[in-house]
Amino acid sequence: MTTTVLDSAAVAAAVVLDPECTLATCRIGLLGLGNVGSAFARLTRDAAPQLTARGFAPIVSTALVRTTSHPRAASAFTSNITADVEEFFAEPVDVIVEALGGVEPAHGLVRRALDRGIPVVTANKSMIAAHGDDLSRLARRRATALRYEASCIAGVPFLGNFERRPLASHASAVTAILNGTSNSILTAMARPSSPIGFAVALAEAQRLGLAEPDPTMDVSGTDAAEKLAILVRLFGCLVIDPASIPLEGIGRIDTGDIAAAAAFDGAIRPIAHASWNGTAVRAFVGPAFVAGTHPLSRISGVTNGIVIRGEYGVQCYTGPGAGPLVTAATLLDDVVELAGERRVRPPSPESSRRAASVARPDTAWFLRLTAARDSDIADLLGSYGIWCTRLARRGDHTFALICPAGYARVQSALAAVEAATRGVAAAFPAIGEDAAC
Amino acid sequence: MTTTVLDSAAVAAAVVLDPECTLATCRIGLLGLGNVGSAFARLTRDAAPQLTARGFAPIVSTALVRTTSHPRAASAFTSNITADVEEFFAEPVDVIVEALGGVEPAHGLVRRALDRGIPVVTANKSMIAAHGDDLSRLARRRATALRYEASCIAGVPFLGNFERRPLASHASAVTAILNGTSNSILTAMARPSSPIGFAVALAEAQRLGLAEPDPTMDVSGTDAAEKLAILVRLFGCLVIDPASIPLEGIGRIDTGDIAAAAAFDGAIRPIAHASWNGTAVRAFVGPAFVAGTHPLSRISGVTNGIVIRGEYGVQCYTGPGAGPLVTAATLLDDVVELAGERRVRPPSPESSRRAASVARPDTAWFLRLTAARDSDIADLLGSYGIWCTRLARRGDHTFALICPAGYARVQSALAAVEAATRGVAAAFPAIGEDAAC
Repeated sequence: MTTTVLDSAAVAAAVVLDPECTLATCRIGLLGLGNVGSAFARLTRDAAPQLTARGFAPIVSTALVRTTSHPRAASAFTSNITADVEEFFAEPVDVIVEALGGVEPAHGLVRRALDRGIPVVTANKSMIAAHGDDLSRLARRRATALRYEASCIAGVPFLGNFERRPLASHASAVTAILNGTSNSILTAMARPSSPIGFAVALAEAQRLGLAEPDPTMDVSGTDAAEKLAILVRLFGCLVIDPASIPLEGIGRIDTGDIAAAAAFDGAIRPIAHASWNGTAVRAFVGPAFVAGTHPLSRISGVTNGIVIRGEYGVQCYTGPGAGPLVTAATLLDDVVELAGERRVRPPSPESSRRAASVARPDTAWFLRLTAARDSDIADLLGSYGIWCTRLARRGDHTFALICPAGYARVQSALAAVEAATRGVAAAFPAIGEDAAC
Repeated sequence: MTTTVLDSAAVAAAVVLDPECTLATCRIGLLGLGNVGSAFARLTRDAAPQLTARGFAPIVSTALVRTTSHPRAASAFTSNITADVEEFFAEPVDVIVEALGGVEPAHGLVRRALDRGIPVVTANKSMIAAHGDDLSRLARRRATALRYEASCIAGVPFLGNFERRPLASHASAVTAILNGTSNSILTAMARPSSPIGFAVALAEAQRLGLAEPDPTMDVSGTDAAEKLAILVRLFGCLVIDPASIPLEGIGRIDTGDIAAAAAFDGAIRPIAHASWNGTAVRAFVGPAFVAGTHPLSRISGVTNGIVIRGEYGVQCYTGPGAGPLVTAATLLDDVVELAGERRVRPPSPESSRRAASVARPDTAWFLRLTAARDSDIADLLGSYGIWCTRLARRGDHTFALICPAGYARVQSALAAVEAATRGVAAAFPAIGEDAAC
């Protein structure tokens, strides 16, 4: 394929810059032809006229699949589909797009590609969370590139941009909604017309295709924790194990919590938060009360969002979190970026260090208490040095917002309250109530 | 200066990639040493350790000023200050940072730099709005770069990122708050404790340094119109004259409007909006009612924000709009980006075309009516095919939200209402009330 629309002056300029490397055609080796891989192959074909106008002609020249035994719609967009790894790597390609998902075998294949100097674009959050630092170092050593814009809030391109911009990315904390499934479920549970419980909302999300048949990764917070680990490496230059992040799923939230949060002028949202000081990380993933004044309190449905507390101010980005089409578009934009530039120096931030610790931050808290007998709860909490800013009785529950306090102290106070009231107490982080989160 | 922290493998990789161009030291020619220029010179010195860790050593090697007759604090960060253009251009530099502001002489100097193949980084919205398309074409012809990330929402880097990403930047409309002074004034006027009128709020903003002694550019909407023209070129590939954008200042808004907007579950915000279809642009800049469900309704004070209606979903970005320090940081990040990459092909979107027309969109509207005598206003509007969704009397005013309608029809209807009621009527666009804005 050749450049047809670019004006001759621009083509001449490109040739002057790099006579050997026209890059008009970009041969893509695609790993995986599932939902995302197929959408990517189709989009690469459909976007051809638009990209040709910019002087690029990406083409999926080869694809690796687990098995070639069943027919695939995507075969219409790909000339060469194989289940043989050696055959795949024998084809000359300019970039590899990884759309397998999961840590292995994706990680081994990506490592092999980078080791050969082939740039890689991926949407694989699990692989990047587990091995992103090593893979980025390998890419730098081999003078090639690893891009993973689609791994985290797939429909909002920000990771690569911040990676290139050291001043903007000098941040002290991130607070985000990183999982559209959890956010959809909590949004549905808050519908004013007909509040529904977690189980019904989950079933509805599955019916609408917003939740997987096995929703564990999403509703447990595991997916968000992997993405948070990626963000901590980018904005904090700290490597953390996603499994070390204090984690809670959204399954414990009920419609009473959601109504009480609204009465406290906020909302329950699936939050991922991290801040850092030296190599000490404070972080959590789980349902949290978000004050109505906080920008994430209004992010509903499958929309994701991130608030970045930078040295030069607070930024907030929101947009589509996932979905095959938007993920494919972000992967293809990464390919276009790679093809359009050649780095003199790899996109390396300051060298990342391994975090020494990952602990819960001292947030404010949203409390739910089911008391079998009456007791002065504010007084009891006060004896632990915990102060309520809001307190409300709704049915047989008492809800409270409390000032920032350490997790251990809150747990001790709740145990005392449970003993005094013969009840059950639960606490969720509250953000936007103070300057900390 | 030499690279001290990068590991040797990465340095070796950089050398393999481009043996002639180490770029460890980046000599910056700075145009202007006013607020932004001085902040840039200081930041370039202060950020040196952080940047050295990435292998870059930018240094302001020369600066051009209008006059060298008065002493400057910034002279501590710059070895070579001159008021002589020829002397400035005689110094060898790797990049020129333009911080003069205003169209001329900045435009002539930037043109001269690009013509010599020197990359330019600028924060100058007026120059880019007036000449951005020509300057970008010149940069492409000379195989060099023009960056203007700080020209529009200086504290949120998004322009360059979208420029590199053709799929994400395929948008049909943008709606934004682009002027922090206007937004601060409208925010102050809405303070629940003590609502204040426009004149008092403006004086307060001037006292706080949020408004210039001559605030005309900001409160008239001229500043926002220039930025909107930049956005229309980026997201719509259409060149428009900022002066062709229907424009209204915020001076006509009073505290009654703001209270009525709150009663209608929204807020008055200084909005810049544009959509396009072929080469026909629909746009306006001015105070507008923003429904409480719209992401811009909560953006307050000096914070700016933009909602981009893209082919793959709606994205929203918010953050600091201006200020010398954040502008300096964004300029320096642009310099780091330029130094860290070398484009094979210039960052050219599809070729921009000149827009055929710029007209007001058919938005919903927020109406304020001061009637000298009673009349059935809803009925009168209805006879013009205009339907009210909300109607409220507050003191001697009637306020209404009406369904989307053309500007001309709304003006005719208002003239009829004025005649029937012997009153005065005003209309402002309303956004977030339907799918259009």
